[in-house]
Amino acid sequence: MKEKELNNKAVILISGGLDSATCLAIAKERGFDCYALSFDYGQRHRSELQAAASLSLSMQVIDHKIIPIDMSGIGGSALTDMNIAVPEVETNGIPITYVPARNTVFLSYALGWAEVLEATTIFIGVNALDYSGYPDCRPDFIEAFQKMANLATKAGIEGHKIQIETPLIDLTKAEIIKQGIAMGLDYSKTISCYQADQDGKACGRCDSCRLRSKGFLDAGLEDPTIY
Amino acid sequence: MKEKELNNKAVILISGGLDSATCLAIAKERGFDCYALSFDYGQRHRSELQAAASLSLSMQVIDHKIIPIDMSGIGGSALTDMNIAVPEVETNGIPITYVPARNTVFLSYALGWAEVLEATTIFIGVNALDYSGYPDCRPDFIEAFQKMANLATKAGIEGHKIQIETPLIDLTKAEIIKQGIAMGLDYSKTISCYQADQDGKACGRCDSCRLRSKGFLDAGLEDPTIY
Repeated sequence: MKEKELNNKAVILISGGLDSATCLAIAKERGFDCYALSFDYGQRHRSELQAAASLSLSMQVIDHKIIPIDMSGIGGSALTDMNIAVPEVETNGIPITYVPARNTVFLSYALGWAEVLEATTIFIGVNALDYSGYPDCRPDFIEAFQKMANLATKAGIEGHKIQIETPLIDLTKAEIIKQGIAMGLDYSKTISCYQADQDGKACGRCDSCRLRSKGFLDAGLEDPTIY
Repeated sequence: MKEKELNNKAVILISGGLDSATCLAIAKERGFDCYALSFDYGQRHRSELQAAASLSLSMQVIDHKIIPIDMSGIGGSALTDMNIAVPEVETNGIPITYVPARNTVFLSYALGWAEVLEATTIFIGVNALDYSGYPDCRPDFIEAFQKMANLATKAGIEGHKIQIETPLIDLTKAEIIKQGIAMGLDYSKTISCYQADQDGKACGRCDSCRLRSKGFLDAGLEDPTIY
């Protein structure tokens, strides 16, 4: 029974997109007992939540929670305010699809759940190469969050630190896809599009679709996305 | 019209309790346009939300949002799990009323709203003297959150940092009460009790009641709490 005593739990933030699905596959491959966490935050692309549920099921996580938190109430993003259109051409700077403090809120909640579960690790599929330029995807943000997390929790104070893992942070989209395919991940089940319809059909034009499509092209692999 | 250009907005986290009400009064006194923020997180003491709404109204904030976020789903606290009793005697260490990562989640959300509002400041009424020993009330947690916040947001990247203000952090409960009374605050409108009934009647026995009651005693002021 000794093995049972080794707590190897991890909370995995899973949106239903390509990156977080790969992140979950990596956590599984590393032998973690996976607890998947998604948020219903009033996002335009709600079919990603169905993808998150379906991926969690097929990848046999221990539990999958979808937490409702209203972020549309504060607005300020094309993903939560239906009056702001999703851009379909590349823009300069941080795009309007940026949701203020989204990853900070998501990681904070994951931290609370990890503490209750006595999990050792949180996985988040942020990526700072082929990404939309969001501030809360960068390595120095994650590093600062880690320091804060060590001080925020009872776990941290008692010396049981919860480690934030970002296995995709330095990878290109093509490298992420290759890694996922090597682990047997079926990317047709993931939804990256910011304005996917209710059946999960992608627009092929938004920033997220463009990054994803280019990733498959660069990887020399067939793109299974339904456009 | 020059004055209009000076943005003097602040987001104030307000629970409905004594500390956050004092914090709101301080922000008003400092001349901020106040945006009050509360959370319906499945807390046992829901009458504090009515107190938060009533205080926000009487103190003429510009807006008051009550954001629903389910924290009972992750459990681990007497405040969100109805199967765990609120302790009525002093305990050692961090008490079971600690809600994992609560202030981290609340501050993260406040950060998002502050960014959308282009607010300069967030006020939180944490206090590290007469408090329950929660890790996320301590100065080094707040300092680490501030550093993380500067990296988390578009605002931070563009050089418009959002300042976290903790005007009560070094004060005793008696000093907080004296300061509030001096500003004309009516503490009968605030609810601190962890298990207040639906009419806001306090138990007089929980940790929060004991700290509050001792505060009025130490301040030599009449305690207007309804027990």
